[in-house]
Amino acid sequence: MESAIPPHLETKRSRHKRVPDDYQPPYPSFVARYKPGVDRVVMAYFGVQYRGALPAAATETLAEIDRRLAATVGPSHWDRAHYVDQSGHENNVSVAYWDDIARFDAWFAPTREVWTGSAREGIGTFIEVLRPAVARHETLFSSPGRPEGVAAIADGMSGEVQEHAYWGGMRDRIPLSQTDAMTPGGDPKLVRDGARLRVVAHDNLCLIRSGQDWSDTEASERKLYLDVVEPVLREGMDFLRDDGLAIGCYANRYMRVFRADGGASEKSYGQSWWRSLAALERWAESHPTHVKIFGAAMKYLSTLGPSAKLRLYHEVTVAAADEQFFEYLNCHPRTGMLAAVEPVGA
Amino acid sequence: MESAIPPHLETKRSRHKRVPDDYQPPYPSFVARYKPGVDRVVMAYFGVQYRGALPAAATETLAEIDRRLAATVGPSHWDRAHYVDQSGHENNVSVAYWDDIARFDAWFAPTREVWTGSAREGIGTFIEVLRPAVARHETLFSSPGRPEGVAAIADGMSGEVQEHAYWGGMRDRIPLSQTDAMTPGGDPKLVRDGARLRVVAHDNLCLIRSGQDWSDTEASERKLYLDVVEPVLREGMDFLRDDGLAIGCYANRYMRVFRADGGASEKSYGQSWWRSLAALERWAESHPTHVKIFGAAMKYLSTLGPSAKLRLYHEVTVAAADEQFFEYLNCHPRTGMLAAVEPVGA
Repeated sequence: MESAIPPHLETKRSRHKRVPDDYQPPYPSFVARYKPGVDRVVMAYFGVQYRGALPAAATETLAEIDRRLAATVGPSHWDRAHYVDQSGHENNVSVAYWDDIARFDAWFAPTREVWTGSAREGIGTFIEVLRPAVARHETLFSSPGRPEGVAAIADGMSGEVQEHAYWGGMRDRIPLSQTDAMTPGGDPKLVRDGARLRVVAHDNLCLIRSGQDWSDTEASERKLYLDVVEPVLREGMDFLRDDGLAIGCYANRYMRVFRADGGASEKSYGQSWWRSLAALERWAESHPTHVKIFGAAMKYLSTLGPSAKLRLYHEVTVAAADEQFFEYLNCHPRTGMLAAVEPVGA
Repeated sequence: MESAIPPHLETKRSRHKRVPDDYQPPYPSFVARYKPGVDRVVMAYFGVQYRGALPAAATETLAEIDRRLAATVGPSHWDRAHYVDQSGHENNVSVAYWDDIARFDAWFAPTREVWTGSAREGIGTFIEVLRPAVARHETLFSSPGRPEGVAAIADGMSGEVQEHAYWGGMRDRIPLSQTDAMTPGGDPKLVRDGARLRVVAHDNLCLIRSGQDWSDTEASERKLYLDVVEPVLREGMDFLRDDGLAIGCYANRYMRVFRADGGASEKSYGQSWWRSLAALERWAESHPTHVKIFGAAMKYLSTLGPSAKLRLYHEVTVAAADEQFFEYLNCHPRTGMLAAVEPVGA
């Protein structure tokens, strides 16, 4: 049994873990392990927003970002996904990951100009980037074989870790929790730069990407996931999207991942921005929508036991104020972190 | 909004609360407030055990304890309840409360001799006592008007408290949690004293009494409680009774409270002995049986909202080794804390 916190990030605690040292989780889970030399990772979300069929400008923009994502100076890993938001807009989001800030910076400056530098007919574009110190970040995987998201750029997976399967495990897996309550500071502010709108959020903003992969499931398990678990998950995702603000969820996207050939894969993820890790904890632990998700997942897993083929993972970051970048061009005013600031007039 | 920890028990923390200082619970709850001069309370469980119809010896024994409980030197409050245990034995348990150790000690010595001093035909008897420092104890009530259990001897109820409606609130309400992880020490041991069997447990043994009162509910709410919530609660209680040991629950009793006239009231409580507060936390938060209870309660409360007439309360103690007393005479070997030690031969 390993700690989710790698040895080189262990510090003298001023804050305790939520479980005793002899805690034994009831089932195995795993975390991504970066090379010890990696002190920071980058997760960059590039969105294109439109209504109805894919406009020509969107196709061109996606082709451009494809070329840049595939470049040898590009990210170590990326994926692309899609969802229809609360305003009925289609959103196509490419997520790219780096473990080298200098490489990212060099790649990002010209890419940003392409993406949000000038408006295009009929589409909006946005960029949401975190570049957290690894001590501000954690992952969790239900099985070790198939990394997703930021874990795809890690050195590999851990063995079974201790800090999971209890409320508070998420916090306990973040190395900074050893010494810091990660309290949010201030309110998000809107900065106008011509047509570009930037959101300057605040210390300890929280991002979660929480995914599921049902591609390995067969007949009865697949039916159980799609008929019983997925509708409850979707209901929770819709709640966060539509009514999350009152409980500290600035924005939520329930994304369906594309295959490499552009078709829909059997993978999805929820991606949400939160005022604080504490707000995310409260929703997960107590809100009826997530209690239902948790109950459905518990029932699913206790029905199937170790034979379950559904794969679950998440990644959570609590970012310092200077580790964040949000920029929107020609997007509707409830897009991403724009929803966290005063509505923007025409 | 008050802290559940009264001002005179606030200490400089070496351990943090689980929620930020600006946490706002989503609904009100209340705690018992003792007079500041009360530094210790006593909760004493007197059980009589038999099979089938009430034997004459049981009637006599209950009459004797009734006389002692009603004496002017007796407890400040007591109640009586009944359940059928996993061996099919009837158990009639009187629970008495004091806030004055000297008075309790004077009353207890002769009462103990009556209760477990000599065996009676066809019945077993047992005594389970905690006498915790108030810093090792917490209560929680869904409404302030009708104290139950130990709260009946308190000075009154608090206003709305902050530390509830999140996992970890129970721990955060116990004043000792400000500085102590309340880790259990050692294993329970059996001590034979002739026919009397005593269990010497260990530091930080945990007791919960968790009750529900549906006497104020009307038609549809009553039906919802009895048809939907109660069966799920019973299932969880049965699990703890039959299979709790593996997860740190030494014993569980799902009791139906008697009215003063001896009939069954519309009140029940679960009373269980745990290896540690942490073990109780893990069951409550993660075990499918309690996740179901929690889900049913959440659904119930979100259906009814503030109009709910069901009353819920609990009291939790984490006792030091020298605050405990367990004594059994002629009881079956799975009675109470006997279940936590090696089976006792004939």
